[in-house]
Amino acid sequence: MIYLDNSATTRPLPEVLDSFQKAADQYYANPSSVHSFGSEAERLLERSRKQASSLLQVDPQEVVFTSGGTEGNNMAVKGIAFQHQTRGKHLITSRIEHPSVIQAFGALESLGFEVTYINVNKDGKVNLEELKGALREDTTLVSIMSVNNELGTLQPIKEIGQILKDYPKIFFHVDHVQGIGKIDLPIKDWGIDLCTISGHKIHGLKGTGALVVQKYVSLFPLLHGGSQESEVRAGTENLPGTVAFVKALRLLHEDQIGKSDHLRTLRHLLWTSLKKRSYCQINSPKDGAPHIVNFSIPGYKPEVVIHSLGEKGIFISTKSACSSKQPDVSTVLKACNLDHDLTTSALRVSMSYQNNEKEIEKFLEILDTTVEKLQQTMG
Amino acid sequence: MIYLDNSATTRPLPEVLDSFQKAADQYYANPSSVHSFGSEAERLLERSRKQASSLLQVDPQEVVFTSGGTEGNNMAVKGIAFQHQTRGKHLITSRIEHPSVIQAFGALESLGFEVTYINVNKDGKVNLEELKGALREDTTLVSIMSVNNELGTLQPIKEIGQILKDYPKIFFHVDHVQGIGKIDLPIKDWGIDLCTISGHKIHGLKGTGALVVQKYVSLFPLLHGGSQESEVRAGTENLPGTVAFVKALRLLHEDQIGKSDHLRTLRHLLWTSLKKRSYCQINSPKDGAPHIVNFSIPGYKPEVVIHSLGEKGIFISTKSACSSKQPDVSTVLKACNLDHDLTTSALRVSMSYQNNEKEIEKFLEILDTTVEKLQQTMG
Ligand SMILES: Cc1ncc(COP(=O)(O)O)c(C=O)c1O
Ligand SMILES: Cc1ncc(COP(=O)(O)O)c(C=O)c1O
Repeated sequence: MIYLDNSATTRPLPEVLDSFQKAADQYYANPSSVHSFGSEAERLLERSRKQASSLLQVDPQEVVFTSGGTEGNNMAVKGIAFQHQTRGKHLITSRIEHPSVIQAFGALESLGFEVTYINVNKDGKVNLEELKGALREDTTLVSIMSVNNELGTLQPIKEIGQILKDYPKIFFHVDHVQGIGKIDLPIKDWGIDLCTISGHKIHGLKGTGALVVQKYVSLFPLLHGGSQESEVRAGTENLPGTVAFVKALRLLHEDQIGKSDHLRTLRHLLWTSLKKRSYCQINSPKDGAPHIVNFSIPGYKPEVVIHSLGEKGIFISTKSACSSKQPDVSTVLKACNLDHDLTTSALRVSMSYQNNEKEIEKFLEILDTTVEKLQQTMG
Repeated sequence: MIYLDNSATTRPLPEVLDSFQKAADQYYANPSSVHSFGSEAERLLERSRKQASSLLQVDPQEVVFTSGGTEGNNMAVKGIAFQHQTRGKHLITSRIEHPSVIQAFGALESLGFEVTYINVNKDGKVNLEELKGALREDTTLVSIMSVNNELGTLQPIKEIGQILKDYPKIFFHVDHVQGIGKIDLPIKDWGIDLCTISGHKIHGLKGTGALVVQKYVSLFPLLHGGSQESEVRAGTENLPGTVAFVKALRLLHEDQIGKSDHLRTLRHLLWTSLKKRSYCQINSPKDGAPHIVNFSIPGYKPEVVIHSLGEKGIFISTKSACSSKQPDVSTVLKACNLDHDLTTSALRVSMSYQNNEKEIEKFLEILDTTVEKLQQTMG
C-alpha cells in the first residue's frame, strides 16, 4: 500500500497508540473528581497542556483541548460572532476555507450576521487589498486558513496579522489544521488570536485537537456545561485522547527541519515529474505547502482515476474528504477561476514525512499505466 | 482500590480498548475518502451504527455519533431551539438537570429565549402538574433527564411522553447518560424525540457517545462543516472511538438483567447498612436508579471525608464531577428543598456491575472508622 492521502487523515503512530492505551487504562478517573485518583488524572492533563503550550509557544491556559479541527473552527467562528455581536455583526473570511469554516459562516448568515468572502487569485491566495477594503467598524472577526487543504496554498498570514494590528477590536482566527508541522506559524508574533489544530492530521488520533485562544479573548462557548477547559469547552475531559494528541505534537516537532526537508524533496520529485507529463496539469502553486500537490487530468473523472489507482494499492484523493461525496466540481478550484475541465478533474496527492522517494516513483509509474489504460478504454 | 465513582466515569473494558486499538491502527483511512481504503472505514462505521441502532431500538440513520454527553445535550437543546425559533422561543427543563443541559438553557436565555424550570419534590422528581401548566403555544422543547446524576432519581419519562402526545409540535429530549444500561427506556414507545448517551459512563471511552435523533426531527447543527453524520454533526468521524463505544454498548447489553439484579443487591446492602448508621442521612429516593446512593454526614465537609477515604484507596464523590470544583452547596439537593446542613455535606456512592459485596462492606467499615476519627479530631 502506498498511502498518499495524508491531508485527509494520517496513520496514528505506535507511540501515540501506546500513550492512549496507557492513559485510558491507568488514568481513567474523571479529572474533575475531587479524590486523589481524579487529581492524578488532572495533573496528567495539566502536564499535557503545558507540553502542548510550550510546543505551540503560547501559555498553558491558552490551550483548549477539543474533539478536532471542525469543533475548533466552529468554536472560534461562532464563539467570536456570538460573544461580540453587540459590538458588530460583520465577519470576514475567504472563498476557499475548509467546509467547517465556510459552513459555520453560512450558519451565522442564516442567523442574521453579515459575512464578506474575500476572493483569491489563481493560486488560491487571498487578495489583501480586498481584505483591507472589507474591514469595517462593525467587523469582529477575520478567519483565514494558513494552508489550503486542496491546493496547499500558503496564505499571507503574517501580512494579515500586520494589517489587523491597526484594528485591535477585530479578532484574527487561523485554521492551521493543514499547516501544523509543515510551516512555521508564530502565533503570538503574528497577531493570531485563535488558532485551530487537529490530531488526526499529524499521526495522532481522530476526535482530538486543540483551539489556541489567547488569554484576552472571550468566547461564547459551543459546549456549555461543567467548568472544564477554563469554562470555554465543557464536557468530561478526554484525557487519553489529549495525552495521545500531545504525544503526536511532540513527535512532530522532533527533527522538524529534517521532516520538512524530506517532504520538500518528495514534492520536488513529484512536481518536476508531473510537469513532464502532457496528460496532466498542476494546479497547486509552486511555493505551496511541502506536502500537497494538486493536479488535473482533463477529460477523466477523478473518481475513476482514484479507483483504478486504488486497485493497485495506491491511495490519493480528489477534493477534501469532507466534501468529496458531493458532485465533481471543486469549489476551491472554481474560486481560483480555473477552467471547468480542470475543476472537474482534480486529484490531490498529500504526503507525510513517512513517505519516501520510492513510493513517489512507484506512484508515477502506476499513474502512467493507469492513464494509458483509461485512454485506451475511452479512445 | 475500591472505585465507587462510576457516575463520574468508569474504567474502560479491555475489550473496548482492544477494539479501539485495532480500528485506529488498521482502519485509519478517512471514512469520507472516495478510495477503497476509505470505503472500508466507512463500512465499518456503518456497521457500528447499525449495531448501535439495534441495541437502542431505533433506525441506523437516527444514531448520530458525538464526542460525548455534553456535546449530545448541547446539540439537542441548542439544535432544537435554533432550528424551530420561528415557531416559538419558549423552552422547558427541570431545576436538577446536568450542567450541560442547565447551562445550555442559560446560554439560550442570554440569546433571547425564555426558559421555564420545573420544580422537583424532595426526592428530585419533577412536578408533572407544573410541567403540564408550563406547556405553551410557543414551546418547542421539553428536556428532562431519565436518571439524576447526583441522587439517582428516576424521572417520569413515560408519563411526560404521554402528556406530550397531545403537543405534537413540542420536541422531547431525554438526557439518558446516567440511565443507559441501568433502566429501560423504550425511546420510540415513550415518544422521545432526542436521547443523549455517553461512552465513558458505560466502560467505554471518554470523548465518545451518541445522540439519537428521530428521523422527522430537524436540528440546527452545533458543528457545521462536511456532510458527515447525515449533515447534522460535521467533522472527520472518530471511527476508532465509535467502534469502541458500540463495543461498550454491546457488552453492556449482554446479561443486562443479571447486571441490574447484581446492582440492586449491592444497593440494597449499602442502603440498609447506611440506614442503621446514625451519623448519616440518605438523600436518594428508595426507588432510585440501582447504582447511585447519595447521603449526607451533617457537620462534615464532603471534601474532608472524600480525602480521608481516598487515603485508604476508596474513591467516592460529592456532587457531579462537572460542578465539584465549585463551593460546597449542591444545587440539586437545594432544589429538592433539603436542609442546608444536608446540601453542604452530601456524598455520592456510584456503583458499577464490576463492584461486589465485599467492596461495599469494606467501604462501610472504612467509612465508620473515618467518621469516628473525624469526630475525635473535631471534638
Ligand atoms: C484545513 C482544514 N480545516 C479543518 C479540518 C477539519 O478537521 P477535523 O477533521 O479534525 O474535524 C480539516 C480536515 O478535515 C482541514 O483540512
Ligand atoms: C446526567 C449527565 N448528563 C450529561 C453528562 C455529560 O456527559 P460527558 O461527560 O460525556 O460530557 C453527565 C456526566 O458528566 C451526566 O451525568
